Amino acid sequence: MDRKVTTIQDVARAAGVSTATVSRTLAKPSVVAKTTREAVLTAVAETGYRVNATASNLRRQRTGSVIVLLPNIANPFFAQILAGLASVLTPAQYGMLIADTQSGPDPDERLTHYLTSGQADGLVLLDGTLSPEALEIPGRPPVVMACEWMGRDLPSVRVENGRGAAMAVGHLARLGHRAIGHVTGPQGNVLAETRLKGFRGAMEAIGLPLHEEWILEGDFTMDSGAAAARAWLTMEDRPTALFFASDEMAAGFMGLVQRAGIRVPQDLSIVGFDNIEIAQHLSPALTTIRQPRTHIGVRAAELLLSMIETGTRTGPSEVIEVEFIPGGSAGPPPPARS
Amino acid sequence: MDRKVTTIQDVARAAGVSTATVSRTLAKPSVVAKTTREAVLTAVAETGYRVNATASNLRRQRTGSVIVLLPNIANPFFAQILAGLASVLTPAQYGMLIADTQSGPDPDERLTHYLTSGQADGLVLLDGTLSPEALEIPGRPPVVMACEWMGRDLPSVRVENGRGAAMAVGHLARLGHRAIGHVTGPQGNVLAETRLKGFRGAMEAIGLPLHEEWILEGDFTMDSGAAAARAWLTMEDRPTALFFASDEMAAGFMGLVQRAGIRVPQDLSIVGFDNIEIAQHLSPALTTIRQPRTHIGVRAAELLLSMIETGTRTGPSEVIEVEFIPGGSAGPPPPARS
Repeated sequence: MDRKVTTIQDVARAAGVSTATVSRTLAKPSVVAKTTREAVLTAVAETGYRVNATASNLRRQRTGSVIVLLPNIANPFFAQILAGLASVLTPAQYGMLIADTQSGPDPDERLTHYLTSGQADGLVLLDGTLSPEALEIPGRPPVVMACEWMGRDLPSVRVENGRGAAMAVGHLARLGHRAIGHVTGPQGNVLAETRLKGFRGAMEAIGLPLHEEWILEGDFTMDSGAAAARAWLTMEDRPTALFFASDEMAAGFMGLVQRAGIRVPQDLSIVGFDNIEIAQHLSPALTTIRQPRTHIGVRAAELLLSMIETGTRTGPSEVIEVEFIPGGSAGPPPPARS
Repeated sequence: MDRKVTTIQDVARAAGVSTATVSRTLAKPSVVAKTTREAVLTAVAETGYRVNATASNLRRQRTGSVIVLLPNIANPFFAQILAGLASVLTPAQYGMLIADTQSGPDPDERLTHYLTSGQADGLVLLDGTLSPEALEIPGRPPVVMACEWMGRDLPSVRVENGRGAAMAVGHLARLGHRAIGHVTGPQGNVLAETRLKGFRGAMEAIGLPLHEEWILEGDFTMDSGAAAARAWLTMEDRPTALFFASDEMAAGFMGLVQRAGIRVPQDLSIVGFDNIEIAQHLSPALTTIRQPRTHIGVRAAELLLSMIETGTRTGPSEVIEVEFIPGGSAGPPPPARS
């Protein structure tokens, strides 16, 4: 590397100002006079000075970035978690690099790539299908999981998924429902499996019969909720209430059965999970379980920053409480047919 | 900079393998034997080698990243545009760094920061409130706007917002509505202003009376749609149809009036804009105007990559067509009260 690295002194000299003025201009351009600003920015361009960037980061062996790995950028579920992460990372001067694990053929390979590429000082994982084995890389940066993770004791921010499922079943049982079904998330997804386990456990604890044919598989999307609705409409013996592993599925289901003339909650009670924004704006408003997603992002970012600062790859795990949100989509069961 | 930069040769020597094996292991870990993989990754950690990262990017004066500036990460509207951007940037080996312009006190300052920080080879702007003046920085990287931009001829991917508004008004007029109102996006937002202008132009072209009190201001969110619904419910002289500048507002409005006993479309017709996922899952499904958001992201990324490759800061602009999506939320007006 023979190329001389441009310093802030070079910029100041070229612009004919002090280094303090260069710093101030770059930190807050609006506070300096227009002519000064233009002189400094022209000097930055001419000298090839790179502010807070690769050159200075390389010197201190830091990238100034945190990578967040998502299963699917297009899923709006993650938007609030990302906002929570950014609300901590931005003031701490970290750029947030978001990457999609499912856009290539092998999600674990994507994880390995980002763990070894040196592009980030730390990673946040939001994909519950990655293999814990992929983290077994010596010298990797710290990692926090902002979702559950099977069988490993790694730093994470978890949500009481099982307890949320039990809240939903308990509410429906107290309303008088005995025929309660469940629409799950995708098989292999740890959130889906924890909610299903919570559903089964609560049904058993309350002493309600489990009908396996009333457990329908979805994939968290509205479309899969609509597909479950088509299946429910064709059943001869229908459950009078359904607990959904996501609000998106509950919304897709409710819209389809309403368009088919079913009244919610008079004919069918529905409870979702997540408390996404649309939940309170539907008619009826969804009864659901709130996950504080912004808070999940905030805590995951704080946990990661403390690991980056102390240079450790271990850290505490945190469990975040869920909350029952009453809506209008769950009511007493319809009178039994004679 | 006295520190010696670690090379791939150093890693190969430490691991006792060839440099080709080091490259292969880092590019695709699953194709090499487990013992080889562990030896290479241990050597990477011990030597401090940074793959594809700051060191190598600095040598070729590239960051390997594209920065996307959004007004609000938590708004799910952007998720599909981001997915479209990622679908082009990921195979082209660019990391996508997403940053929020509205999280700090001065959005233009955020833009200036990213234009001068040297962290990206190019930027995509999705925030229609940034000042064109903030782009007047000598030597800045190429920028593409994936929304309209007032008064400047800069490379952009635009949507026919005005034409979409005219499609909505035309459809309602053909159904027999004469009393048509509009719920706008936030003042100062270029998309909101173009749709409002399209609404006014279409009403005038068709010869329908414009009632200024039937133009309600929203901010694109579901909550602002619900607020407009509360205003509509208190009007003595109500429009029989409303065109909304976003589906989110239309959904928030429809849910609230339905919970108040209003039937859509028998009592009130509603047309949205965007064709977000929930639109087709509501009851009734929303009649709306489709913006192909994934495609907008794809074209913006392709345009930016060609500018990065050719080293230019100018480029063509592209206008993307909108499409009318019939739903169940617009029908003939109710019989006139006598």
